[in-house]
Parts: sequence; C-alpha cells; structure tokens
Amino acid sequence: MGAADGAPLHVGNAERAGELFARDGWVVLTGGRPFGVMEAALRGAKKVAGSLTIGILPTAAEVPSPFVDVAIRSDMGHARNNVNVLTSDVVIACGVEGPGTTSEVALALKNDRPVILIAPDAAARAFFSDLGRGKIRMVATPEEALQVAVHILDSR
Amino acid sequence: MGAADGAPLHVGNAERAGELFARDGWVVLTGGRPFGVMEAALRGAKKVAGSLTIGILPTAAEVPSPFVDVAIRSDMGHARNNVNVLTSDVVIACGVEGPGTTSEVALALKNDRPVILIAPDAAARAFFSDLGRGKIRMVATPEEALQVAVHILDSR
Amino acid sequence: MGAADGAPLHVGNAERAGELFARDGWVVLTGGRPFGVMEAALRGAKKVAGSLTIGILPTAAEVPSPFVDVAIRSDMGHARNNVNVLTSDVVIACGVEGPGTTSEVALALKNDRPVILIAPDAAARAFFSDLGRGKIRMVATPEEALQVAVHILDSR
Amino acid sequence: MGAADGAPLHVGNAERAGELFARDGWVVLTGGRPFGVMEAALRGAKKVAGSLTIGILPTAAEVPSPFVDVAIRSDMGHARNNVNVLTSDVVIACGVEGPGTTSEVALALKNDRPVILIAPDAAARAFFSDLGRGKIRMVATPEEALQVAVHILDSR
Repeated sequence: MGAADGAPLHVGNAERAGELFARDGWVVLTGGRPFGVMEAALRGAKKVAGSLTIGILPTAAEVPSPFVDVAIRSDMGHARNNVNVLTSDVVIACGVEGPGTTSEVALALKNDRPVILIAPDAAARAFFSDLGRGKIRMVATPEEALQVAVHILDSR
Repeated sequence: MGAADGAPLHVGNAERAGELFARDGWVVLTGGRPFGVMEAALRGAKKVAGSLTIGILPTAAEVPSPFVDVAIRSDMGHARNNVNVLTSDVVIACGVEGPGTTSEVALALKNDRPVILIAPDAAARAFFSDLGRGKIRMVATPEEALQVAVHILDSR
Repeated sequence: MGAADGAPLHVGNAERAGELFARDGWVVLTGGRPFGVMEAALRGAKKVAGSLTIGILPTAAEVPSPFVDVAIRSDMGHARNNVNVLTSDVVIACGVEGPGTTSEVALALKNDRPVILIAPDAAARAFFSDLGRGKIRMVATPEEALQVAVHILDSR
Repeated sequence: MGAADGAPLHVGNAERAGELFARDGWVVLTGGRPFGVMEAALRGAKKVAGSLTIGILPTAAEVPSPFVDVAIRSDMGHARNNVNVLTSDVVIACGVEGPGTTSEVALALKNDRPVILIAPDAAARAFFSDLGRGKIRMVATPEEALQVAVHILDSR
C-alpha cells in the first residue's frame, strides 16, 4: 500500500518489495490503479515468472495497471481499502504519505491484520507507534519487510 | 467520530458537541453503536427536543444505541466508515485515539470532506498537520468546533 | 422500491404508499434518486407534516430527490441496494419491472426481511411465489400493503 | 453463480462448466464458500492444471472452499454479489433457484454485464426473458454456455 503520487524512495521500495515477495511465492495485492506505489509493487512482482498479482479497483469501469493479473472491480470507492487489508495476510505500506494509505493502515489495525511500515517518516512513526500498540512493525528496507512478514506467517 | 473506548475528555466533548450541534439544527450522525464517543454525541443530541440522530451500523443485526433515531444497517464492517464521512457535511473527531477514528479522518480527507479535530493529542496533531495540508482544522472545544463548522458551511 | 422509469400504475401506487405510511408514522426510505417510483414514494411521504424520508444514494456526489430529508451517500453503486433492504423493517416494491428492483427483492429475501409486492405482473408473481416460499406477500393496493406491513410489525 | 443448496442438475452443470472454462483458459470466480454450485464450479476448474480460481467471500473470517486459489474477503455480506458480477466478463448462473443467485443475475443486468443461464426452470425463463430484454442468453448445457461466452468476448 502507498501513495498514488508517492515519493521516489517509496516507489522504489514498493517495486523492490513486489519483486522480493513474488520471488518468495507470495501473491501481491494492491489497489490496482496504474500509479505510484500501487503500480510499482505490481511491476516488481511481474518481473518474476509465474507471479500472481491482484488489483482491487475502487470503481466499476476504470482501466487497471497493466501489471494486474486479476482485477477485482469493487465499485465501492475508498471503502475498497477495507477489502484490500482484509484480503491480505500481511499489509505492507511504503511510506504513509497520504490519506488513502493512512486509512489502509488504520483499517488493517482495526481488522487485526499485521502491518509493516517500510521507511515511515518521523511523524508517521510517532503517531502509529501510539496507535498500533505494538501491532505495527517498522522496518527500513523491503528485505527486512520480507523477513518480518515470513516470520509473522510462520508464527501463526 | 471517536473511540468506542474514548477517554473521558473526548467522551465529554462528544456529548457537548452533540448537544450544541443539535441545538443549532444539525442532524447528528455517528457509527451508531452504544459505546464511547459515538454514543455520547448521540446522547447529547437527544437532549434537544426535535433533534434527529442517524447511526450507521457496521453489521446487519446489532442493537444500536438507544439515542439513535434512524439506524442504517450497512453490513459492510469497518468499510461503513467511508459511508459515515461521505454522508457528513463536516466530520468532527473527538480525539484520534484509535484506528477506527484514524480511518474515518483519513477517509474524510480522501473524499474531500472538511474535518475538525477537537483536542487532538500531540502525535495526532503533528501527523495530521502534515497529512491534511491545511484541510483539517484543530480546535480545543466543542464550542469552537461549532463556530468553525458553521463557517465552513456558510463559505460554500 | 421500484423502477426509476416505472409505469404510471406503479409510480401512482408508490406516491400513495409513501403518503399512507408516513401518515401512519413510518419513516420512508428509498434509493433517493429523483426518478420514478423512488421519488414518488418520497413525494407522497412529504405531503404529510412531520414526516421523515431517507434516501440511500449509490454514488458520493449526486443530487438527491428534493423530497429526501436525509441523504446517505454510500458510494457503493448498486451494492447499496443491500443497505436499503437491511435498513428496512418491511420492504415494499411497487412493480418488479427492472433489474434494480429485482435485486432488492432478492436481497431482502436473502437477508430475511419481509417483502410486500404491490401489483406485480404475472411473470413476477409466478417467479417470486417460487422464490419466496411464503415469505413474500402480494397485494393489489397501497392500502392493503399498509395493513399487511402493520400486521408484520405487530406479530414480531 | 448458483445456489449453496443447488439441485444435483445445477451442481453437476457447475462442475462441468468450471472444468470447461478453466480448460479454455478462463479464470473461474464464485462466491467462494464451500457449498453447492459455488464449490462445484471451483472443483471443476481445479481439475485443470494451471487453472486459477477466485472466491469473493461475504465475511471477514470464514473458511473458503479448498478449491479457491485466491480468497477475497469483502466483509460486505450479500452486497458482495455486486462485486462478483462487476468483476466477471461473463456471468453464468446454473439454475436460478434462490434469492442469492437471483440478486446476482439482476445486479449483472443492472451493471450491463452479459448473463448466461444454464438450464433455468420455466418460471425463471419467463421472468428473466421479460427482465433481460434480450441481454440474457439461456442455454441447456455447460458446453453451449462456453460457446456463447467465447462468442460474447470475441464480439467486443
């Protein structure tokens, strides 16, 4: 998860994370639109042969990112963010720069889904440390995110 | 909007805000459950003769707060937070203590709804100042919240 | 419930039903758009002083019927039909002429809400008799619909 | 699409259709629960090596059919039927025996998705012939359904 107009750091992390997770056999799911962090994660995943990407689109008719294998057409606007996080075994945000990503991190916590933030800035780090009460992991790189995510699934 | 297990400060502000807004002729809408900030705002509103309260419930069958006049049964879980904010002319949060309220503030911003935070703590103030880019107002009391909300509607 | 381009018989029944139910103290809820059966039911209700009407709109920004007192903005497209029926104590359809109304009657049954069809045509009568297995009442007039609806609530 | 407690004819058709469509390279999507027509279509599809199945579940936590490859957790109750049909290139119903399937066929029409009914009974045939105004195809077998579906996609 991340901003449609994400900063280069976060877009780069998303592409790297998409590739790493796909290579490890994960299905990569995003909001499915052809922009920013969303698309970068999908593009990274599709560098891997045999990978599978899912995009959950907010509207009924829009064109998904070309890196989406299966487009779910929710037609529920930003409420689809709740479906994104419920469907995810682990929710990973590359930066928390905008309100869409903030809503996804918050909805993930509300639904008891594990959350990993890659390279959050200081304000996000402070706010979500309070809010997450230990349930949000903060890491510096996509490589660490994968390690933590694998550990989370293994401990279930 | 606010936490189901909100701190006394925020619950008190919610009750006062509910009463003030109802007295000024506003319809008061919350998540409709019989807890915390949600219920306090409704209870405040129902002190006013002729007031109207709406509760948008997350599930199909739960019992709403007794201070709800019209219960909308969404059966869409926490995605109903998106309906809450879309339906509101102004979104007012009494504290941003939990992930549900955070998701509502974030979804309100994402949907371009005006947001007023009453008495946010320092971490919320810092995080949402960045995120809101001038679109979130922060006030200290319910009385100020009403003044700001009336001004927002008048300037449309 | 009923078609946005409903036949005159059904639009007339909706207006009469809206007025009768409002006069009996019911809140009248429809899909909220300014067309056909939806609007007629609201217009009928607003002939009654002190009546309350709710419109659950499919999108985030559209203009509701002027006869809507409280517009709920779902932004969930035709999925809002599920919210319409879940929120209703009794679902009343004036004709089942189009797919929107058909989906509402079907979703009402699926959610165990009581359904009354006013003046269904022969094909609808045959199909829903099978589907409803006794849970759908079919009546000829708005007056009968009110009698049956009051009886349903009284028997709870 | 079809009933969770579907008749043997329709369950058999669903399994055959799932297999035929998967063999032809289609992604097979259902409501994802481990019952009736839904599960049969998925089971049929998973007989084919390399097939992909999607299940869009109504709630947040339920266990999907073991024949679901990717479970989308909507937590929007029966409103998820709207997501099912919006996401489908062609909606195929094996019987229209219950209100869930009826709502899906109706929502597909409302959203302008092509619909094929396999072996509908007489009442469904009469009702949906009127409702569909030429937009619903009715066929006797899964083999015909595949032919018609391929033709629909080819004519786009």
